[in-house]
Amino acid sequence: MVHYPNGKADIPGFTPANKRPNKKYTAHRGMNLEEDINISNKYYLDHDKAVIHKKPTPVQIVKVDYPKRSAAKIVEAYYRTPSTTDYNGLYKGKYIDFEAKETKVMQFPFKNISDHQIKHLDKCVRHGGIAFVIIAFTSINEAWLVDAAYMVDMYRHHDKRFLSYDEIKDNGHLIPQGYAPRLKYLDVIDDVYLREE
Amino acid sequence: MVHYPNGKADIPGFTPANKRPNKKYTAHRGMNLEEDINISNKYYLDHDKAVIHKKPTPVQIVKVDYPKRSAAKIVEAYYRTPSTTDYNGLYKGKYIDFEAKETKVMQFPFKNISDHQIKHLDKCVRHGGIAFVIIAFTSINEAWLVDAAYMVDMYRHHDKRFLSYDEIKDNGHLIPQGYAPRLKYLDVIDDVYLREE
Repeated sequence: MVHYPNGKADIPGFTPANKRPNKKYTAHRGMNLEEDINISNKYYLDHDKAVIHKKPTPVQIVKVDYPKRSAAKIVEAYYRTPSTTDYNGLYKGKYIDFEAKETKVMQFPFKNISDHQIKHLDKCVRHGGIAFVIIAFTSINEAWLVDAAYMVDMYRHHDKRFLSYDEIKDNGHLIPQGYAPRLKYLDVIDDVYLREE
Repeated sequence: MVHYPNGKADIPGFTPANKRPNKKYTAHRGMNLEEDINISNKYYLDHDKAVIHKKPTPVQIVKVDYPKRSAAKIVEAYYRTPSTTDYNGLYKGKYIDFEAKETKVMQFPFKNISDHQIKHLDKCVRHGGIAFVIIAFTSINEAWLVDAAYMVDMYRHHDKRFLSYDEIKDNGHLIPQGYAPRLKYLDVIDDVYLREE
């Protein structure tokens, strides 16, 4: 795996996701972080390694129709701001909690994560859970696990507006990729959080 | 707290929830399990005792309008069957997972819980989490914590179609009620699962 520490976005041979003509059927398509995590979670679940799910998108339901002989139809609803993270679950008896974020540029801007989510991650750490953020640099097809304690500290106390790629590289953990699971993030959890076991 | 082990629904002085004229403003209203748990979770969260949230209702979003100068409006969506339970989170370093069910009759019919949810609860137990079902008998204003291992076993292996009130009383744990939190289910978790700590 090649690292591009200089923030260069125009990598030779790389086509941005939105310019690929037929993304769905391209064999070597770029990273879709949410999909990759969902598929990995399904693999982990099916192989009885962990019980980690994506939470449903929070929706404020305003109006529902009940047509005869068919399912209730929601006809007015709005997206709500999530008050927690996207993923949580259970691995080797431990509570796991994380947020997943893609970035096209070679840094992670703090505006990509909400105050609510930072507060939630902080709570998870303080109550003894394993909490982190997975940050994917889509332009170079890398996903990094960044511990929540570090993320919360940087977000809160350093007058910073982003984490640079180098900071993430120095303080995070590269997630190995493969066929199944696509993102082997439980391996990183073993290394980083459960080494003594 | 008075127990009515004989399944009698017409308790003297009791008015069913759907016949109360002004439920919202009645001081001694009956139990609304979901609301009671949500308020209790907020109390636990605000007092930094636990990090337990209700998952959003899963919705299949089909069509979204993007009106100018206002929020995206979902105009066609459908309820999806939940593949997990309604609540999970973190307490004293432990993964907590549960489903909450109301029943108006003095038994808990197994048709009130899905195969998916039983499978999920079983996984949570096997992976070292604390998992249970909270069953509320709304007619007598009692909520019981029933351990997931017992629930899964009864659901799967005994050719049974329901748990009787007596079975729940003998194998479950009555959840103390109060003003704040309304349902003190963490106290029961302390007693049942974390006694040595």
